[in-house]
Amino acid sequence: MAAIETVSEQRCFGGIQGFYSHVSEACGGPMRFAVYMPPAAEEGPVPLLWYLAGLTCTAETFTIKAGAQRLASELGLALVMPDTSPRDTGLPGATGDWEFGEGAGFYLDATEAPWNARFRMYSYVVDELPRLVAASFRLDMGRQGIFGHSMGGHGALTIALRNPGRYRSVSAFAPIVAPSRVPWGEKAFSHYLGPDRKAWERHDATALVKGGARFDGTILVDQGEADGFLVNQLQPQRLEAACEGADQPLELRMHPGYDHSYYFIQTFVDDHLRHHAKALVA
Amino acid sequence: MAAIETVSEQRCFGGIQGFYSHVSEACGGPMRFAVYMPPAAEEGPVPLLWYLAGLTCTAETFTIKAGAQRLASELGLALVMPDTSPRDTGLPGATGDWEFGEGAGFYLDATEAPWNARFRMYSYVVDELPRLVAASFRLDMGRQGIFGHSMGGHGALTIALRNPGRYRSVSAFAPIVAPSRVPWGEKAFSHYLGPDRKAWERHDATALVKGGARFDGTILVDQGEADGFLVNQLQPQRLEAACEGADQPLELRMHPGYDHSYYFIQTFVDDHLRHHAKALVA
Repeated sequence: MAAIETVSEQRCFGGIQGFYSHVSEACGGPMRFAVYMPPAAEEGPVPLLWYLAGLTCTAETFTIKAGAQRLASELGLALVMPDTSPRDTGLPGATGDWEFGEGAGFYLDATEAPWNARFRMYSYVVDELPRLVAASFRLDMGRQGIFGHSMGGHGALTIALRNPGRYRSVSAFAPIVAPSRVPWGEKAFSHYLGPDRKAWERHDATALVKGGARFDGTILVDQGEADGFLVNQLQPQRLEAACEGADQPLELRMHPGYDHSYYFIQTFVDDHLRHHAKALVA
Repeated sequence: MAAIETVSEQRCFGGIQGFYSHVSEACGGPMRFAVYMPPAAEEGPVPLLWYLAGLTCTAETFTIKAGAQRLASELGLALVMPDTSPRDTGLPGATGDWEFGEGAGFYLDATEAPWNARFRMYSYVVDELPRLVAASFRLDMGRQGIFGHSMGGHGALTIALRNPGRYRSVSAFAPIVAPSRVPWGEKAFSHYLGPDRKAWERHDATALVKGGARFDGTILVDQGEADGFLVNQLQPQRLEAACEGADQPLELRMHPGYDHSYYFIQTFVDDHLRHHAKALVA
């Protein structure tokens, strides 16, 4: 396992907001990620909460826009924030479209060339980065939660559903709950996974629940009603119907007036941190 | 007085984070500013807190990086956040140097050509923008406070000291307390105000206090000890000595490990909001 390099470390709410780089095996090149370590880590290993960001975002977005470190510090929760894709891949078509390629990895392992050489964010987030952070930070890997926004909400839901027992808690802001059925997902999946829609279902939270996957706990989802992507891309009612049909506990909260931005996220991020802390903090 | 145009309005912590544009008389062209209106404004006029940003920043910086809306919403405080200079001035030398010109207005009225035609941020912040926001938002202009960061900390301190009775509270993060004596200020002031250093003193908080200016209340200043600009540009001990010699109450808090960034600001922003709320909220 390659070593990590410290890009920067800055004090924040008594803890450390750090940015790190390393050479990723899963993604075949250099990757950056961010970690917030709360002051409680000085006393011993702390539980960790994965945050997966949305289209166009980087490892930095949540650290500067969400205002999450305040309560994470108080609760003693580490935050681990990967990038949204490999970068500088040099692959034709990997840049220039904000919905696909760099900044739009969709937290899956691409099976189609040329994407399958680099776009392997599922393995990166589920296997490689956990090993790396476990070896580099004072983390209690027995207490992990996962959440995300939009494409990252899709990532959090699908990863939690596919890895029972790994995460004690899961939540999402405005997730893409059924990517197989909406334009963002259809574009990305047809490039990354090819035309066989059956293969897409492993990366579709609604399809996973319909197919029998369960999360042991309540899934928390917040959605703004003034979100410009609600009708065409997000469609939380699909997940709601699937969970109802499967006895999967889901708390879907609809918020009048809120949009898709980090002003929405910062408004409700404390609720999400407390949701995770209930499962992660003794 | 020209009307304001709404650029965007987004719900945040039950209130509205808005961005607005207008044609400024003081600055001779279009200007943008941001306002956060808390939910309490639905009941009646609310007190307002001016935030002046630092070098390279815009009206947006504080709104996305400080995490201030949470407590402002709870306390019922409006936040008014001007840009740091006029933009697209077309003046030779106004862009390309982050320490001077656009993004670096230093909250003064330039007296030297060509800057005096556009760079009049003192009049903008003290006269024009207050009239504009008073006419456009539900604000209680009898209850105003002011704070800022770095160049904006300089702005907040000098504007509060030069306008006794106008602001009930003042504070700063890592302010440039003596711009006449440090490279950032010397560069900017010699361009904006010319070579006569006597004329610089009206825009230097330390010189103002030495010259008899007083703020009726305690000035709160937070400064990170790991701030890379501390020794060469900020030098809070100059303000501390001047306040001690003048019986001006100052609470200067030095914070080990913190730097000049918004991770520092977000850590202490709640303390500042509470400091202002003591003076502004009944």
